[in-house]
Amino acid sequence: MKTARTQVKRVPKRGHYDSETVYSVLDAGLICHVGFAVEGQPFVIPTAYGRMDNRLFIHGASASRMLKSLQQGIEVCVTVTLLDGLVLARSAMHHSMNYRSVVLFGTAELVSEREDKWQALYAFTEHVMPGRWAETREPNEQELRATTVLALPIDEASAKIRTGPPVDDAADYELPHWAGVIPLNVRAGDPIVDPQLTKGIAVPEHVERYLKLGN
Amino acid sequence: MKTARTQVKRVPKRGHYDSETVYSVLDAGLICHVGFAVEGQPFVIPTAYGRMDNRLFIHGASASRMLKSLQQGIEVCVTVTLLDGLVLARSAMHHSMNYRSVVLFGTAELVSEREDKWQALYAFTEHVMPGRWAETREPNEQELRATTVLALPIDEASAKIRTGPPVDDAADYELPHWAGVIPLNVRAGDPIVDPQLTKGIAVPEHVERYLKLGN
Repeated sequence: MKTARTQVKRVPKRGHYDSETVYSVLDAGLICHVGFAVEGQPFVIPTAYGRMDNRLFIHGASASRMLKSLQQGIEVCVTVTLLDGLVLARSAMHHSMNYRSVVLFGTAELVSEREDKWQALYAFTEHVMPGRWAETREPNEQELRATTVLALPIDEASAKIRTGPPVDDAADYELPHWAGVIPLNVRAGDPIVDPQLTKGIAVPEHVERYLKLGN
Repeated sequence: MKTARTQVKRVPKRGHYDSETVYSVLDAGLICHVGFAVEGQPFVIPTAYGRMDNRLFIHGASASRMLKSLQQGIEVCVTVTLLDGLVLARSAMHHSMNYRSVVLFGTAELVSEREDKWQALYAFTEHVMPGRWAETREPNEQELRATTVLALPIDEASAKIRTGPPVDDAADYELPHWAGVIPLNVRAGDPIVDPQLTKGIAVPEHVERYLKLGN
């Protein structure tokens, strides 16, 4: 998956091109940033996504400007970034962040076949929270029609990962400044029950599992 | 700041165009996604940023492909997204996320004047962690030369914000599925001291303050 486009240029040792690494970052994220250009004007739109095998799905209302543009087969760049920590160095210029990111290039394909679309929407919902799909109302025909699903093959992608302590200039290690990493994690808080929820419906097991996993 | 480019098209009631809202989202984020196109090929690159008044700064090594491209005055789109929660609806299709995002359009200007560059690097470091700059080694002349700083005026920007419970179809409120929001927060963990830190240097007050604020 290392191509002229995906090759990590800045700090090449941070680059990874194997599917396993790329998938692991994609599966850990919740939001991707979709980049495309219309007559030279770039747009970067945050959106949810799902993955199944080597396809990344994005979706939205059929009227969406982004989805309409991408359906025309223009080049797209999808980036997922997970921030893992603040890297505090002794010198201002060596401050950094620990992160995992994936940059994916390609063109999107319309997912039009009903069963394929269904599977993509399943992947979406399960990506947000495993076990969720089975405890919701499934899409109806009208919803399926009103929703556009696009797939991007995960063929031309690279991951970039930084871990570990700050790297200072040799002479700076003697300085009296504190240095280290402040780890950052996304934590789930207590569920906020929908005020309109029918009385007597308890927080389901798949939500409890999610809260335990992430905390 | 509402222009043809920035107008929020999908779910317009979520759009905000006032500086106060735009700045508050930018100040709460740590990573932006910078989008630009070279010969029709879009790139979306995650990077740190800083803000001072109505300018957003990005920076990097002078050899950076992204910074070289942007310096040529091409159109750029910078997006910052903060994920605030998973919105679990009764129906699969009404699942959503609570978030705050800003999309900024414009062209970047090279920050070349020494004092201006210095201020931008200060804004960068203080954006990561208030109080940090004063307890680090300041940039030297060689570092200043090797670093490119670009500024984007925050003139053409919009914020998009979703808050609150899921919104289901009227008929679905009777369903037996649990619905609500799982709040997500970025939490700082215990500092990981640089293994090469000189013995006897304690975690400084500005780091302690940061840990209290975010947790």
